[in-house]
Amino acid sequence: MVLASRNDAKLVELRRILALAGLDVELVALPDGPDVPETGATFAENALIKARDAVRVTGLPAVADDSGLTVDALGGMPGVLSARWSGPLPGASRAERDAANNALVLAQLTDVPEERRGSAFVCAAAVVTPAGAERVVHGEMRGRLLREPRGDGGFGYDPLFLPDGQNRTSAQLRPAEKDAISHRGHAFGQLAAVLRELLAL
Amino acid sequence: MVLASRNDAKLVELRRILALAGLDVELVALPDGPDVPETGATFAENALIKARDAVRVTGLPAVADDSGLTVDALGGMPGVLSARWSGPLPGASRAERDAANNALVLAQLTDVPEERRGSAFVCAAAVVTPAGAERVVHGEMRGRLLREPRGDGGFGYDPLFLPDGQNRTSAQLRPAEKDAISHRGHAFGQLAAVLRELLAL
Repeated sequence: MVLASRNDAKLVELRRILALAGLDVELVALPDGPDVPETGATFAENALIKARDAVRVTGLPAVADDSGLTVDALGGMPGVLSARWSGPLPGASRAERDAANNALVLAQLTDVPEERRGSAFVCAAAVVTPAGAERVVHGEMRGRLLREPRGDGGFGYDPLFLPDGQNRTSAQLRPAEKDAISHRGHAFGQLAAVLRELLAL
Repeated sequence: MVLASRNDAKLVELRRILALAGLDVELVALPDGPDVPETGATFAENALIKARDAVRVTGLPAVADDSGLTVDALGGMPGVLSARWSGPLPGASRAERDAANNALVLAQLTDVPEERRGSAFVCAAAVVTPAGAERVVHGEMRGRLLREPRGDGGFGYDPLFLPDGQNRTSAQLRPAEKDAISHRGHAFGQLAAVLRELLAL
C-alpha cells in the first residue's frame, strides 16, 4: 500500500500506528513526482484528492491523510491551509515553514485571552483502492494554544499545542504517548478496520 | 460627538457620510491617550468596547465602528483581526501594516481558485451615550478577492477587493461611489436614524 505523502516523519508515525493495529501491510512512500494541488475546501476533500492521485500514479491501494490545526479564535483556520499559513514561501525548508507558521499564529493570537485560545488538531484519513472504493474517517485532538513554543519533538504546530488533560505540548510527548491521543492516531485507529474490509487483510 | 478612532481617513469618511445624511453634529477624533484593547470576539463587541471607552474618556456621546474583511476561504477571517492579521508589527506604519496584511492574505489564498475567493467587508457601528444608552448596527459589502492589488485609494484591504457588480476595486472607487455601496456606508446609513433618536438631533 502506498502512503500519499513524502513526509518522512508522517511515514514513520503511520507505520507505527498500523503495526500497533496488527495490520500486515507494507506502507511505502509516494515515489518522486509532481505534487497534486491540494485545493480542497476540507480535510476530507484533500485526503481524497491525494489518495486518488496516488492510486493513479502507482496502481496500488492508497492511504492519504490531510491534517491541520483548527483555532477557535481564527474561525477554524489555519485548517486546510495549515502547512501554507504564511504563504508558499518558495525555497524554505520544512523547518523554516513550520517556524514561520508557528510565529504567525502566535502573532495573530497576541491579543486573544486564555479563555479563547481553544484549538484542535483534526485529521481526515482516506483510503482509495484501484477498483475505486473510497472511505474517509476523521479524528480530533482538542487542546489550547500556548504563548510560546515548547518542545523539540513532532512537527508543524506541535510545540504550541497543549492537549486537553496534558501538561506537556504535542512536541514534548513521546511518540507512543502522542499516538494514543492524537488526531492522526484516532483517525488511523478507525482506518485499520476500513483497510481490513477494503483490502481483505 | 466623538468618533472613537484616531484614523484620519476614517474620520473624513464618516464626516462625509454623516453630512450626506443631513445630521447637524460635530464629529471630533478621540484625543490622544492609551488605546483600549480590542479583545472582542466580534465586530459588535469591539465597537461597543471602543465607544464605551470614548464616553468614559470624553464625557461625550460616542460613535465607534469596527470593520474588517471576512474571507470565505479563511473561515471568515481576518475578521476582528483584520488590522493585525500579520501580528502586532511593532514600529510599522499604517501603510506598512496594510501592505503586510494584503501580502499575507494574497499568499494564503495562492492556491484558492476563483470560485472560492468570495469575501465581504463587514462593519459594526455602535453608539453609546453618557447616560448609558447603547445601539449597534451592521453593514456589509460582498465581493471577491483579486490576485494582486489594484488602486491607490482607500486603506486596508481595499486594493484586493472587487465589490460585486463593480469592475474597479474599493481602492479605485471615488469616495462618494464607495460610500454608496460600502459596509461602513450601509452601517452609518442606519446609524443616522439611531443618532437622531438617541441624541434627539
